[in-house]
Amino acid sequence: MMQTTIKVEGMTCDHCKKAVTGALKELDGVQDVQVDLNTGKVDVSTNKEVSKEAMADAIEDQGYDVVS
Amino acid sequence: MMQTTIKVEGMTCDHCKKAVTGALKELDGVQDVQVDLNTGKVDVSTNKEVSKEAMADAIEDQGYDVVS
Repeated sequence: MMQTTIKVEGMTCDHCKKAVTGALKELDGVQDVQVDLNTGKVDVSTNKEVSKEAMADAIEDQGYDVVS
Repeated sequence: MMQTTIKVEGMTCDHCKKAVTGALKELDGVQDVQVDLNTGKVDVSTNKEVSKEAMADAIEDQGYDVVS
């Protein structure tokens, strides 16, 4: 299990959390997603190599900005 | 066409807007819903009598607070 942390801007509520979590979970290899609305940090656990770019794209497709 | 304005707390994003709009539009008689996220004001246009209580219930069921 590998873990990637992504800093995201614009997530405000549980709907946002669900949108981001759902989009990331559609990526092959993503096992678990934890979103902290207060900090904007998204922790993604994967069981194989998933590029951070693919994760960032999935998040941005939902309308949020990836900071780092 | 009658119009009712409801003041709601807790709506933060477009998902919230859609959740509230969708819930209100399910009420028989509701024709149009306009949500202003900045002010929290929800304008509901109806083509027959719809109680404000029914509207408030629909909004609260989505997890928001009706202020007035």
